[in-house]
Amino acid sequence: MQTDTRALHNRLARIEGQVRGLQRMVDEDAYCIDVLTQVAAVQTALEQVAVQVLDSHVRHCVADAVAGPDEAAADERLDELMAAVRRFAKVR
Amino acid sequence: MQTDTRALHNRLARIEGQVRGLQRMVDEDAYCIDVLTQVAAVQTALEQVAVQVLDSHVRHCVADAVAGPDEAAADERLDELMAAVRRFAKVR
Amino acid sequence: MQTDTRALHNRLARIEGQVRGLQRMVDEDAYCIDVLTQVAAVQTALEQVAVQVLDSHVRHCVADAVAGPDEAAADERLDELMAAVRRFAKVR
Amino acid sequence: MQTDTRALHNRLARIEGQVRGLQRMVDEDAYCIDVLTQVAAVQTALEQVAVQVLDSHVRHCVADAVAGPDEAAADERLDELMAAVRRFAKVR
Repeated sequence: MQTDTRALHNRLARIEGQVRGLQRMVDEDAYCIDVLTQVAAVQTALEQVAVQVLDSHVRHCVADAVAGPDEAAADERLDELMAAVRRFAKVR
Repeated sequence: MQTDTRALHNRLARIEGQVRGLQRMVDEDAYCIDVLTQVAAVQTALEQVAVQVLDSHVRHCVADAVAGPDEAAADERLDELMAAVRRFAKVR
Repeated sequence: MQTDTRALHNRLARIEGQVRGLQRMVDEDAYCIDVLTQVAAVQTALEQVAVQVLDSHVRHCVADAVAGPDEAAADERLDELMAAVRRFAKVR
Repeated sequence: MQTDTRALHNRLARIEGQVRGLQRMVDEDAYCIDVLTQVAAVQTALEQVAVQVLDSHVRHCVADAVAGPDEAAADERLDELMAAVRRFAKVR
């Protein structure tokens, strides 16, 4: 997991830089559509973070619980997972 | 699973009716915003269908594969699941 | 607007057919992932409908109100438009 | 527009802080679901930024162009707006 954590940290550091860039654009009164394009780029980068975390969570925490002997714990992990997927997919 | 299939079928039958209602609204030249509100209602209903299918898929097909002895089959199910989640969440 | 209405009606008739196809898939116990793929296709088709309606609404109703002399009416159209965009983009 | 710019700058400064908080969570190996919850909070905050920019763009730049005498310029603004809405709503 070390490599994953480092990759995730780096992605987030880049996102932090993008958000600072957005503040500069706003301060310099950049054209609205250019600001929106940059916001969309940050949103895409954040989605990639969420996908990476979700992917690793499903393959490790959830898979381990489901393969383990404690059925109640497995069910709890699955409920939690589906709640996270619903929130991620912005289910109304 | 019988009850689930029936519930799903009924949800889809209601959605079919909503889509027919939308055709009538368009034919009768309803106000754009009212059409958009009704499209959003159908989209919400379809999301509920997707969530129900995904939920049942995770708790049955995926959980069985992960708890089973065939690691390659489990990995394939997990890859497939994550691809479905990404598509569902419209990850760019 | 006649051509637009006909195109919209036809799109919706195709979506109705896709939803009927989904009911058949569910009845015949199709593989969950195939059902989800088909649900995503219907969602994409519905988004196209929403975009067409929104596009035409912006270029006709909203643009006319904004170019017209009644400022309050124009503001109302703009409020309504932004509410529709927020709902369409599933803003939380 | 001064107040709007300041409000937007402050929102973005808060988002920058949230992204730094996410890096700390990742470094301290926080629970995946908690990370996902925090990512969703940042996404919601970014959507609010996009909505504020889009709202102000529609009410100022687009409305001015539409009310103005240059039809080609108005059309260009409307095309650009619809492209931004499609991207914001992640239309497939």
